[in-house]
Amino acid sequence: MANVLVLHGPNLNRLGKREKHIYGQTTLAQINKKLVEKGKQWGLDVECFQSNSEGELIDRIHQCDGVFQYIIINPGAYTHYSYAIRDAIASVDLPVFEVHLSNIHLREEFRHTSVTAPVCKGQIVGFGPLGYELALVAIAEMEATSSKQKGGKR
Amino acid sequence: MANVLVLHGPNLNRLGKREKHIYGQTTLAQINKKLVEKGKQWGLDVECFQSNSEGELIDRIHQCDGVFQYIIINPGAYTHYSYAIRDAIASVDLPVFEVHLSNIHLREEFRHTSVTAPVCKGQIVGFGPLGYELALVAIAEMEATSSKQKGGKR
Amino acid sequence: MANVLVLHGPNLNRLGKREKHIYGQTTLAQINKKLVEKGKQWGLDVECFQSNSEGELIDRIHQCDGVFQYIIINPGAYTHYSYAIRDAIASVDLPVFEVHLSNIHLREEFRHTSVTAPVCKGQIVGFGPLGYELALVAIAEMEATSSKQKGGKR
Amino acid sequence: MANVLVLHGPNLNRLGKREKHIYGQTTLAQINKKLVEKGKQWGLDVECFQSNSEGELIDRIHQCDGVFQYIIINPGAYTHYSYAIRDAIASVDLPVFEVHLSNIHLREEFRHTSVTAPVCKGQIVGFGPLGYELALVAIAEMEATSSKQKGGKR
Amino acid sequence: MANVLVLHGPNLNRLGKREKHIYGQTTLAQINKKLVEKGKQWGLDVECFQSNSEGELIDRIHQCDGVFQYIIINPGAYTHYSYAIRDAIASVDLPVFEVHLSNIHLREEFRHTSVTAPVCKGQIVGFGPLGYELALVAIAEMEATSSKQKGGKR
Amino acid sequence: MANVLVLHGPNLNRLGKREKHIYGQTTLAQINKKLVEKGKQWGLDVECFQSNSEGELIDRIHQCDGVFQYIIINPGAYTHYSYAIRDAIASVDLPVFEVHLSNIHLREEFRHTSVTAPVCKGQIVGFGPLGYELALVAIAEMEATSSKQKGGKR
Amino acid sequence: MANVLVLHGPNLNRLGKREKHIYGQTTLAQINKKLVEKGKQWGLDVECFQSNSEGELIDRIHQCDGVFQYIIINPGAYTHYSYAIRDAIASVDLPVFEVHLSNIHLREEFRHTSVTAPVCKGQIVGFGPLGYELALVAIAEMEATSSKQKGGKR
Amino acid sequence: MANVLVLHGPNLNRLGKREKHIYGQTTLAQINKKLVEKGKQWGLDVECFQSNSEGELIDRIHQCDGVFQYIIINPGAYTHYSYAIRDAIASVDLPVFEVHLSNIHLREEFRHTSVTAPVCKGQIVGFGPLGYELALVAIAEMEATSSKQKGGKR
Amino acid sequence: MANVLVLHGPNLNRLGKREKHIYGQTTLAQINKKLVEKGKQWGLDVECFQSNSEGELIDRIHQCDGVFQYIIINPGAYTHYSYAIRDAIASVDLPVFEVHLSNIHLREEFRHTSVTAPVCKGQIVGFGPLGYELALVAIAEMEATSSKQKGGKR
Amino acid sequence: MANVLVLHGPNLNRLGKREKHIYGQTTLAQINKKLVEKGKQWGLDVECFQSNSEGELIDRIHQCDGVFQYIIINPGAYTHYSYAIRDAIASVDLPVFEVHLSNIHLREEFRHTSVTAPVCKGQIVGFGPLGYELALVAIAEMEATSSKQKGGKR
Amino acid sequence: MANVLVLHGPNLNRLGKREKHIYGQTTLAQINKKLVEKGKQWGLDVECFQSNSEGELIDRIHQCDGVFQYIIINPGAYTHYSYAIRDAIASVDLPVFEVHLSNIHLREEFRHTSVTAPVCKGQIVGFGPLGYELALVAIAEMEATSSKQKGGKR
Amino acid sequence: MANVLVLHGPNLNRLGKREKHIYGQTTLAQINKKLVEKGKQWGLDVECFQSNSEGELIDRIHQCDGVFQYIIINPGAYTHYSYAIRDAIASVDLPVFEVHLSNIHLREEFRHTSVTAPVCKGQIVGFGPLGYELALVAIAEMEATSSKQKGGKR
Repeated sequence: MANVLVLHGPNLNRLGKREKHIYGQTTLAQINKKLVEKGKQWGLDVECFQSNSEGELIDRIHQCDGVFQYIIINPGAYTHYSYAIRDAIASVDLPVFEVHLSNIHLREEFRHTSVTAPVCKGQIVGFGPLGYELALVAIAEMEATSSKQKGGKR
Repeated sequence: MANVLVLHGPNLNRLGKREKHIYGQTTLAQINKKLVEKGKQWGLDVECFQSNSEGELIDRIHQCDGVFQYIIINPGAYTHYSYAIRDAIASVDLPVFEVHLSNIHLREEFRHTSVTAPVCKGQIVGFGPLGYELALVAIAEMEATSSKQKGGKR
Repeated sequence: MANVLVLHGPNLNRLGKREKHIYGQTTLAQINKKLVEKGKQWGLDVECFQSNSEGELIDRIHQCDGVFQYIIINPGAYTHYSYAIRDAIASVDLPVFEVHLSNIHLREEFRHTSVTAPVCKGQIVGFGPLGYELALVAIAEMEATSSKQKGGKR
Repeated sequence: MANVLVLHGPNLNRLGKREKHIYGQTTLAQINKKLVEKGKQWGLDVECFQSNSEGELIDRIHQCDGVFQYIIINPGAYTHYSYAIRDAIASVDLPVFEVHLSNIHLREEFRHTSVTAPVCKGQIVGFGPLGYELALVAIAEMEATSSKQKGGKR
Repeated sequence: MANVLVLHGPNLNRLGKREKHIYGQTTLAQINKKLVEKGKQWGLDVECFQSNSEGELIDRIHQCDGVFQYIIINPGAYTHYSYAIRDAIASVDLPVFEVHLSNIHLREEFRHTSVTAPVCKGQIVGFGPLGYELALVAIAEMEATSSKQKGGKR
Repeated sequence: MANVLVLHGPNLNRLGKREKHIYGQTTLAQINKKLVEKGKQWGLDVECFQSNSEGELIDRIHQCDGVFQYIIINPGAYTHYSYAIRDAIASVDLPVFEVHLSNIHLREEFRHTSVTAPVCKGQIVGFGPLGYELALVAIAEMEATSSKQKGGKR
Repeated sequence: MANVLVLHGPNLNRLGKREKHIYGQTTLAQINKKLVEKGKQWGLDVECFQSNSEGELIDRIHQCDGVFQYIIINPGAYTHYSYAIRDAIASVDLPVFEVHLSNIHLREEFRHTSVTAPVCKGQIVGFGPLGYELALVAIAEMEATSSKQKGGKR
Repeated sequence: MANVLVLHGPNLNRLGKREKHIYGQTTLAQINKKLVEKGKQWGLDVECFQSNSEGELIDRIHQCDGVFQYIIINPGAYTHYSYAIRDAIASVDLPVFEVHLSNIHLREEFRHTSVTAPVCKGQIVGFGPLGYELALVAIAEMEATSSKQKGGKR
Repeated sequence: MANVLVLHGPNLNRLGKREKHIYGQTTLAQINKKLVEKGKQWGLDVECFQSNSEGELIDRIHQCDGVFQYIIINPGAYTHYSYAIRDAIASVDLPVFEVHLSNIHLREEFRHTSVTAPVCKGQIVGFGPLGYELALVAIAEMEATSSKQKGGKR
Repeated sequence: MANVLVLHGPNLNRLGKREKHIYGQTTLAQINKKLVEKGKQWGLDVECFQSNSEGELIDRIHQCDGVFQYIIINPGAYTHYSYAIRDAIASVDLPVFEVHLSNIHLREEFRHTSVTAPVCKGQIVGFGPLGYELALVAIAEMEATSSKQKGGKR
Repeated sequence: MANVLVLHGPNLNRLGKREKHIYGQTTLAQINKKLVEKGKQWGLDVECFQSNSEGELIDRIHQCDGVFQYIIINPGAYTHYSYAIRDAIASVDLPVFEVHLSNIHLREEFRHTSVTAPVCKGQIVGFGPLGYELALVAIAEMEATSSKQKGGKR
Repeated sequence: MANVLVLHGPNLNRLGKREKHIYGQTTLAQINKKLVEKGKQWGLDVECFQSNSEGELIDRIHQCDGVFQYIIINPGAYTHYSYAIRDAIASVDLPVFEVHLSNIHLREEFRHTSVTAPVCKGQIVGFGPLGYELALVAIAEMEATSSKQKGGKR
């Protein structure tokens, strides 16, 4: 059973409370609960963590070594300038998937650039909370493929 | 049962034949076959079309009106400059999802910009052929939600 | 009697069907019909052609040689990047007039630049379908002036 | 009968005297005379004004309120940097049409940008003095349409 | 008693008449009247002047020498390009305060840059007409401090 | 009685200790003491908080919901790149005022841009510690106006 | 005997008919005829193809697999923006040589950049129709060297 | 005897009164007096004019036609953005010489660009008031050469 | 005996564990141990501190006042955007030396710019862990020179 | 018999000794020897010269006047910034051909621009040492054509 | 008697031989002869030197120390990129005057920037060979003023 | 015993004579003498060379092959544009260290970029003449490590 860390960056604790026309009405607690449940269905042990602090997010990424096999991260506004988080992602040997709730390409110019995307394996943008689930689907699929391959090798 | 058009842009007919270190070994025919099958499982009628011609892709998008409920598009290199395809997407009243096989943010500078993304609903990048399936998952989920809502309204 | 080719670029076949708040409610067929009629009144033989394909538009421009005396073109989104259409216009020895329905200067940044305008004789922007008619008025005026001059020379 | 103010910006008083290979041989007085005559034919009361002073042009735009129904403006070189004239145009609730004699897209880089165009309704470029007349034609047409609509409403 | 010149740049005479959703409903006369009154309360002799002409604004700044001790200026659109007004401000040895009614950082790109701000002492942005009063408060406070210091020195 | 949170960003704890030629001699404690006193005079309950940590500043902004009615913020160097603080400000439904001690337009290029200003209501620049007081004056004025309006409605 | 495909892009069918001061007087048919003859002399089987359509050019490049050993391409204006043709060239495992008739570095700014050159093996610019022949010379030389090497290995 | 107009742009009336460390201690009246005297010595009739108004400077340039044979202009800050003055210079058929008192290349970035220089015949920068005299020397020399040539032709 | 603080920024705790082809195999603990030893040899009391948090690094810099005489800092990825750390360095009156393990000029574009370097005294790039030692050598040398000078003055 | 100067710029004396994966194994002496031989076959008198000094290369270009009829130049790294060599080429009235061994469009960004190409007649890129021979072929062809034309004129 | 070194940069030895439509018909020898003569008249000992080599020009500037009191330099194309010559000029404590024969602002973009101008005292552009003489006039004037001042001090 | 070449670029011969507030009072001869002495202490044979000529510096770098094991280079102003020196460094198979006396990041914009740094192994900036010694320390350290490793291998 693979362990997945879901990391939420700055201001995502305000989900469902702020700017609902952009980010929707679901709260972060509701999203996390659903991810844990879905994870269970698909054989994935999902843990969620949110922080507004760049340093804490970096610490958390470092601590994944040997504990988690996958990271799903929504770096919030840090996406657009945190080269420190980028280096943290590059420093762990895990597949990391970047998720954005809204279509960042439709919004302000500065949101069109992701400094973290080049060190992530994949990116899912604009699907709302469903985006996290799609990342879980992808992970489940990868786990299935890899266990099949291991099986096939026997 | 929702109808989904999967549109593949220029050079995607070369999948599995060209630059395998970037795009993998699966051919377009294999991808399409799997998408049709997966679609069936999830109650979606999937049709696939590939063209190297900008004009043909635009024609095909126009023809979706009243025939398809969703478009999944990988505009290939047109992603980066075809404002004409962008306008075509904007001209149909359907949710369109953009898919890229490789992580475009890791590659040449010109591949970092998508002129079509701002008129798409969501974007999935870097998951290989699995990306198309994730888009199908999202559509199936939306269909489920919407039929539930309709049901609830009764 | 001068022959005038009116060329409509990509997505203009969608006029009156798509984004009516930007492009208005009149269809392309209605616009063309009116242009042919107005042309007749002013002694101009007007022919209309629409294509979503860059190559077809270029072919059509080439075929004007010796057949048409004027071209009115709305290159749609190709306006902003088709150096190939620009070269095609430069390669025919005819006055070409560029028309845009909406005020492109009010819209997205990329629509502010026209790569075809420098090889056109004039440009009419933001008058809706009336813009094509203004171009016809200009052509009729030029024809009148030129026949007067020829007359005076006799 | 609609009132139309035609505003000529800096250096246009030099028309027919300066750089004739660019701007032609007609003087501003001749242009204005013809516009007044054409206006009469089409039921438009045309008044013309030229100034080299940014402040005077702004004053004149302000004074249009309740006096003129349309403005045709050739802001000359102010086109490219006078945000003050732009604000003046935005501050009157009238349709304003921008006219340029030469094809500004063919000339120096700085002439390719118009800071006033985004607050104008339409723009006519490269038709020489005929450009002003095309703007009058458009206004006459709009007046006809609007009086027809008012008539239809009865 | 200190003398304060309040300078209003182009289009500010239109306040309360134009674009009220941006600039509010108060007219310039009302603003000026209140500033003179408030000035009196706080021991400041306030004079107000508006012009749409760059040259007149510069003339007025020059004439402050030996007459006024402070200038409050809203250079309107000239803020964004009038290096001549900037030089005029730099050429008088007085503290100058720049005021903008609306939040210029929220509006068009060109409004984000002030070429006059670097030679002003302070800048107040986005408080509506209250912004001028805040500048007066600051001046009153500076006068109080400076007279206290002079007193203390005796 | 309205509650006002004054937020001081990174390095502002060094005020009066560092670079006095730029920031003056007053310490942060002295500034805060004066703001609390002035607030009392004007019927405002002022609380002050300083942090060098981006995350803590964001946390503090979030905690304002239902506790404070206004925020005055000097984001220090975060002004120029912290899109995360920008999002935090946008996520609370309060008027926020940005204050800078020195005239940032006179200093290094990077200090000319504020990424937080577009989501603030107003900005006061270059008045030294007096800038905070001007923001308090503005808040007091707003409170007065709003209570008058409520009174008038009765 | 090696097979060489010579691909001519948009507007090259106009050679000898358009802008002769830039492109010379020779027609495309004459160029092609000479290339076929020269090819024969040097043991190369040369085939020529022209299209104004980006999609057709891409199709033709794909079809080279296993049929041609070398491509000589003059992508015309597509040189400057067709990332789709670039990808097509990258997708075939053949040496491709880019030829331009005129010295593109002497002409408009946009012609200074080639998006296809980085995936070509070599580029020949400014030699007129002779440029194609030089490419053939190079291919003949390569064939000679390679057959010599093969011979040497025996 | 040739007539020379010396045009001083905005803020040059402040010479000798403002920023003496940059512009020196000589007043404009002193400079003008010396230029008239020097002119007389060299057979040149020198007239001087200063204005802070862009429009007035343009008017004055227009009025040179047939009255002056040379213009020496220091456009002050208008140097850096007044395309209207540039057009005015281009509209008179006279040699115009641009003079700047200080070394503009040593000062703020925006002072490095002159939009008027490309339409002037020569430019003299950084010699203080002596710069105007050098321009007069050049004019005297040109007059001498040209009268010699005329003489030689007899 | 001088006190030296060695500050390691984000992700440097991962040294010897991550991307060894870039950063080498030595761990941060090993580096620090060696620096303390070397320091002792050269009469320097070295203390080391690492944090992933921008705020903590700033706090630590502030606390140097009166405790340390020199700072050696490797700001990691913060080098490229932390104007807050830059301000912190500027706020302490100590010589600060910037060290980077890898040659940042050889890596991604964003790593070529250091926003902290302009407020540091010196910068050492590309020497691996040896870089820190070189900074210590420089400090020892400065201490020697300064004590010699003090001695010489007696 | 035409005389051809082959000029090799900086570091080309290192050919065959340095970075062989980029520039190949042939030495400059071998290249030059082959060029002289090939020249003889084609009736061209070829002389070769290499220098690392910009000034010497310029001197050599100047000395061609009346001695050589053609120049083939590989300006090495000077290609990208030596406007002085560009001016030297422009100052001789000879056809100059620019040759680069490697495909400069595939390498570092700064190698994509040639400041000398706009004053050369043609450019050959990416063919290795064969590029020089292609330039000789072109010269031989031009000589043949020109002597034929002279012959035909008799 | 003051000593003046006139330094001519690359390609200026070609004057009167190359591109006469830009640089005129006078040779460098003629210019130098006239400068020496004019110098004598005005009490200046003029020496002239030309080199195509950046290094030689730098050497010559260094050698001025204690030998020359003024330098007049036309750095030719080095003007636009030789920061080494800029540093050489800055390293000698003499007034240096930059002269350009043609109006560099009218020519290619790269000629609009001078990297040497910021360290020169003055710049004279577009007066042809007369420009050097104007610089001599300025030097003579400075010498006169300075000897007058010395005289006055006695 | 390793041989080290210390290369000083343009204007460094002026050290101790020019701009002492930037570069200090030590002459180049003094620096070189100390480097040779220090080298001896640490078992390094140091040779020094200065030239103002780009070509000579390149020649000297080429001659290092087989003679020197390390190069320390201060390319002076060539640092910022000499791609030719960059290529020379890349063409020798030796570790090269770049040294700058002053903190180039504190000075003019153009000094912030080093085109040679990417091909050097390390860079030392802002330590004055001490910078060269630090490079020697590093080399001595590398020699020690490498001879230890060789010893260990025996």
